[in-house]
Amino acid sequence: MQAKVSIIMGSTSDWSVMEKAAQHLDQYQIPFEIHALSAHRTPEAVEKFAKEAESRGIKVIIAAAGMAAHLPGVIAASTNIPVIGVPINASLDGIDALLAIVQMPPGIPVATVGINGSLNAAILAMQILAQGDNSVAQSVKIYASSLKDKIEQANVEFSKIKFNYKTN
Amino acid sequence: MQAKVSIIMGSTSDWSVMEKAAQHLDQYQIPFEIHALSAHRTPEAVEKFAKEAESRGIKVIIAAAGMAAHLPGVIAASTNIPVIGVPINASLDGIDALLAIVQMPPGIPVATVGINGSLNAAILAMQILAQGDNSVAQSVKIYASSLKDKIEQANVEFSKIKFNYKTN
Amino acid sequence: MQAKVSIIMGSTSDWSVMEKAAQHLDQYQIPFEIHALSAHRTPEAVEKFAKEAESRGIKVIIAAAGMAAHLPGVIAASTNIPVIGVPINASLDGIDALLAIVQMPPGIPVATVGINGSLNAAILAMQILAQGDNSVAQSVKIYASSLKDKIEQANVEFSKIKFNYKTN
Amino acid sequence: MQAKVSIIMGSTSDWSVMEKAAQHLDQYQIPFEIHALSAHRTPEAVEKFAKEAESRGIKVIIAAAGMAAHLPGVIAASTNIPVIGVPINASLDGIDALLAIVQMPPGIPVATVGINGSLNAAILAMQILAQGDNSVAQSVKIYASSLKDKIEQANVEFSKIKFNYKTN
Amino acid sequence: MQAKVSIIMGSTSDWSVMEKAAQHLDQYQIPFEIHALSAHRTPEAVEKFAKEAESRGIKVIIAAAGMAAHLPGVIAASTNIPVIGVPINASLDGIDALLAIVQMPPGIPVATVGINGSLNAAILAMQILAQGDNSVAQSVKIYASSLKDKIEQANVEFSKIKFNYKTN
Amino acid sequence: MQAKVSIIMGSTSDWSVMEKAAQHLDQYQIPFEIHALSAHRTPEAVEKFAKEAESRGIKVIIAAAGMAAHLPGVIAASTNIPVIGVPINASLDGIDALLAIVQMPPGIPVATVGINGSLNAAILAMQILAQGDNSVAQSVKIYASSLKDKIEQANVEFSKIKFNYKTN
Amino acid sequence: MQAKVSIIMGSTSDWSVMEKAAQHLDQYQIPFEIHALSAHRTPEAVEKFAKEAESRGIKVIIAAAGMAAHLPGVIAASTNIPVIGVPINASLDGIDALLAIVQMPPGIPVATVGINGSLNAAILAMQILAQGDNSVAQSVKIYASSLKDKIEQANVEFSKIKFNYKTN
Amino acid sequence: MQAKVSIIMGSTSDWSVMEKAAQHLDQYQIPFEIHALSAHRTPEAVEKFAKEAESRGIKVIIAAAGMAAHLPGVIAASTNIPVIGVPINASLDGIDALLAIVQMPPGIPVATVGINGSLNAAILAMQILAQGDNSVAQSVKIYASSLKDKIEQANVEFSKIKFNYKTN
Repeated sequence: MQAKVSIIMGSTSDWSVMEKAAQHLDQYQIPFEIHALSAHRTPEAVEKFAKEAESRGIKVIIAAAGMAAHLPGVIAASTNIPVIGVPINASLDGIDALLAIVQMPPGIPVATVGINGSLNAAILAMQILAQGDNSVAQSVKIYASSLKDKIEQANVEFSKIKFNYKTN
Repeated sequence: MQAKVSIIMGSTSDWSVMEKAAQHLDQYQIPFEIHALSAHRTPEAVEKFAKEAESRGIKVIIAAAGMAAHLPGVIAASTNIPVIGVPINASLDGIDALLAIVQMPPGIPVATVGINGSLNAAILAMQILAQGDNSVAQSVKIYASSLKDKIEQANVEFSKIKFNYKTN
Repeated sequence: MQAKVSIIMGSTSDWSVMEKAAQHLDQYQIPFEIHALSAHRTPEAVEKFAKEAESRGIKVIIAAAGMAAHLPGVIAASTNIPVIGVPINASLDGIDALLAIVQMPPGIPVATVGINGSLNAAILAMQILAQGDNSVAQSVKIYASSLKDKIEQANVEFSKIKFNYKTN
Repeated sequence: MQAKVSIIMGSTSDWSVMEKAAQHLDQYQIPFEIHALSAHRTPEAVEKFAKEAESRGIKVIIAAAGMAAHLPGVIAASTNIPVIGVPINASLDGIDALLAIVQMPPGIPVATVGINGSLNAAILAMQILAQGDNSVAQSVKIYASSLKDKIEQANVEFSKIKFNYKTN
Repeated sequence: MQAKVSIIMGSTSDWSVMEKAAQHLDQYQIPFEIHALSAHRTPEAVEKFAKEAESRGIKVIIAAAGMAAHLPGVIAASTNIPVIGVPINASLDGIDALLAIVQMPPGIPVATVGINGSLNAAILAMQILAQGDNSVAQSVKIYASSLKDKIEQANVEFSKIKFNYKTN
Repeated sequence: MQAKVSIIMGSTSDWSVMEKAAQHLDQYQIPFEIHALSAHRTPEAVEKFAKEAESRGIKVIIAAAGMAAHLPGVIAASTNIPVIGVPINASLDGIDALLAIVQMPPGIPVATVGINGSLNAAILAMQILAQGDNSVAQSVKIYASSLKDKIEQANVEFSKIKFNYKTN
Repeated sequence: MQAKVSIIMGSTSDWSVMEKAAQHLDQYQIPFEIHALSAHRTPEAVEKFAKEAESRGIKVIIAAAGMAAHLPGVIAASTNIPVIGVPINASLDGIDALLAIVQMPPGIPVATVGINGSLNAAILAMQILAQGDNSVAQSVKIYASSLKDKIEQANVEFSKIKFNYKTN
Repeated sequence: MQAKVSIIMGSTSDWSVMEKAAQHLDQYQIPFEIHALSAHRTPEAVEKFAKEAESRGIKVIIAAAGMAAHLPGVIAASTNIPVIGVPINASLDGIDALLAIVQMPPGIPVATVGINGSLNAAILAMQILAQGDNSVAQSVKIYASSLKDKIEQANVEFSKIKFNYKTN
């Protein structure tokens, strides 16, 4: 089984946030790998990873980082496949990581999702994989159609709330 | 009993904030309804709700949302009745939701209240209802005249605090 | 002719922003008045204005202010009719005015629109007036249906842009 | 005993912050009073308080408020004695209150201290009182000379910390 | 010629920013279309566009918006193809648009690029198209390899700068 | 003639902002002096100035600074007379200077006014001088009573604006 | 043993953050001292310290401060050796301290590290010491080469996580 | 002549800011070089540069970058000599670049100066060089002693300003 998505982060402390990305890919049977890499602690390993990812069969990279979050941008600089950046809230409510990831200079984009938005990173990764894989496209649709379930459940909950002047 | 105010939110987790709006309307005998809707999970239901609200007799909509809070603006785009937006503090202290609600482009206003300001949303809704309903106008006045009570109680509390050089 | 909307601001320098509100009301034949008032320079006049507005027939107040923008909140404290607050960008890109207007404490709401959002203030004022006035409700609908015109014109403009690989 | 400093706040919940101001004034035998007032809930009482403060013998007013903090500015608008504003951290880390207090328009200053800076408000009040009262000037000096004590104690603590390569 | 990328914006005033995206796609022979759509002015047209885009052959949508920028998220809610969001600096230096686009709730991602980052949006779109199209993959590589040219030119410029103690 | 107020700034570039403070004091016949001092360029001169100010007859110090604005706080650390801090907008819209001045630690207050708020600094200085000088107290009242003039003039201007549905 | 690095802070409450700097220097056998100093409480001691540090053999100063953090800049104003500033998160998530330290005016730099970044301050101090001391240069290299260990351990942890579609 | 300081930036557009650093080093006869490098456009050149800098005789690196400013941190990750980071104001008033440079994770510091603070970067570089070079130490002292000149000149200017109640 060849991984199509690579989930990268700099620390085990990021796992509690990134776990949702792995769970989503796993649920929809998308082969993925998980690596610890750091733009600052292991720059050579990052470059090697980024350069080899495409030829290893990786189609999308999800890179999470906090603070002065350089990892997604540094990976994007050495690969041609899409890099999804997940800003981790490690300081300043995550606004430093968001800006350090999204404000990339012209030429090297990082597809940025919201602060701690690991689930959305996985969904976006699948939307991208779906470009070349119809079965993933089917999974994307199945997931999308499931989104309204949570709202319907919320409406059931709200229907149980009683007030004298509540009409529904 | 026909609801005049519709309270809309995207998740049961918003209820702890929005409960105060419902309590206030209930206390002043304003018929209201509560719905879960999401600009992103149930866009068609949002559009249907917004388009039908006025003809169902709804006079004001209170819409709460957090993060990239699109719900109030999206509802406002499909109705002509006033939409009150309540930014929910779900991330970044709620500043993302505030900006995503209040900074509407020219043409489609959302009457925005403070972060987590559900009580003020209900009070504002009643001020608006009062335009066409004298009994609501009376309720608005009764509530307003009650506001000084909390200050008077605070003064009683402060009068009990003892210092050597405190003169009152 | 009795004014139904009162447009309040603290300085002639605010007029370049607030002019759009007056123009919109004028276009839709909503009688309005314009006053200069300052929560800090003329506090007594503000209080007198706020207390008498309703009995003079004013239905909605639009109050604009910049910096530590107290005017909308101070007016709201002395009236029961809806107060729409317009944050003026006079410093800090207007973020100080926005927070000083929207973050009202529980009990006294200000219906806040975006920074320099005077047109939206007028539109919201008409949505509120429409609660008790069917002809205004008609005007609100007419304006709303005109909104798509600007988009249609933009599409005409975009259709004229030529690229080799542009398909429309 | 006639109060020289008036400590004003809008809620009993502000007392935990403002208590330090009262303690400092009490320690240095400055007569003071404590009142609950709200620019929004009791605007008339605020105006009456502000207009009468000087003739009652009040020399400095310390006004604390959170969120869209209008109280210090509104009091300053109706008195000629100095008003010290204390931004309370009730939302957004207190940045909304800070901006709503400090960014006063030209003509009506509020002497603003840091967020939750009640002790500094009391020290500043005494510096102002000292202008016309030599005994207070003496107290200001005594307090100032005590400030280095805390640093000296910290140095004693630091001298006890042991490391192999720590030289002091 | 069937468009593969759809560039969407709400106003002709956004064109000066978005032009770079069109130029990049045109340069690399990616068929694209340009539409004016507004989440607020033409909500039905947005929904129709979003629902039909995939079946019309669109593979990626680039959506630009300023202020309370709802367009990218609203489109993403009604399609399964990737949506790239470009925050436009129309107010507050673009931070409102950035937050309103990137902070999407779980379930509906928007691949966000930097403020006014239209060129990066086009590059990212091509990286995504490359998943299912080898010739686009080739173009992505060609463009990436050209990036160092600008740096080399800068080095030529810097080599011409003369100082007494400059060694290169 | 002995100066009672000392206006301090770090650069001639601050003069365009601080000129209003000098003009206001001059208009109300308050003797003042102007010095260039820098917490960083001339720390010893700052300390000497701060320590000697009171004995030279200075009653209030107005200190302006931009960026990492240390001057007001450093002066406050070496004097017992009130120090009014004026944040200068030299970078980041002045928010750095505001925070560097107002957020003083417990023990050493700086009476902070708004960004570029030099006029308010002079007014506050006079309110403080008025504590021990009845003629200054009279000047403070005269100035305060003049504040409404600008509003009255604005009302005259607004009365000249003509619209079909403007009622005043 | 002569201290080469001086660690300065204003309060024992800063020790929990600054302890890591001391531990790092101790581990690499760099003699250091710890002092409590305050730009506001003990300005004379600060000046004396700064002026004498170099002649006492101190090569680098690490100065930590929170809120309106003046200590690093004030020390830098009176010494010619490098001053490393550590912003302490004591309010506003530390953004006030960061700006008050880093935004120094031209002429007097403070080498600023991240909020609560005491370990990085120590590492930077050693990089500076290494300029004139080969044994410290060796220690810097040893530490740098150890950085990848944490990533390798993280990879071991990640390799233990099991998912059905995880490939590594 | 062997360069001791390397000034690095990503674009010729940064030169107008960075020129002051070069001028300062040149004035004090510090050999330096200027290179264009980009963490994103030329990652391999950056790594090569960083790894070889020390052995080429470079003692300090000054790296400037704007937006998601990765260059200083990426260089710091591959060298053991001090890296001084200069945030360039290219967007968001430079706050994005400041956070992306200063908020480095534990292990790899960047000595950050203020936004556009190129002169301070050069001064700091000389303070660091002075650790191992007495003649540079002398230059640092000469420059420091010149700082008060600008203040003295400002005082001359201020002495020429005439007011009726100005006493100096």
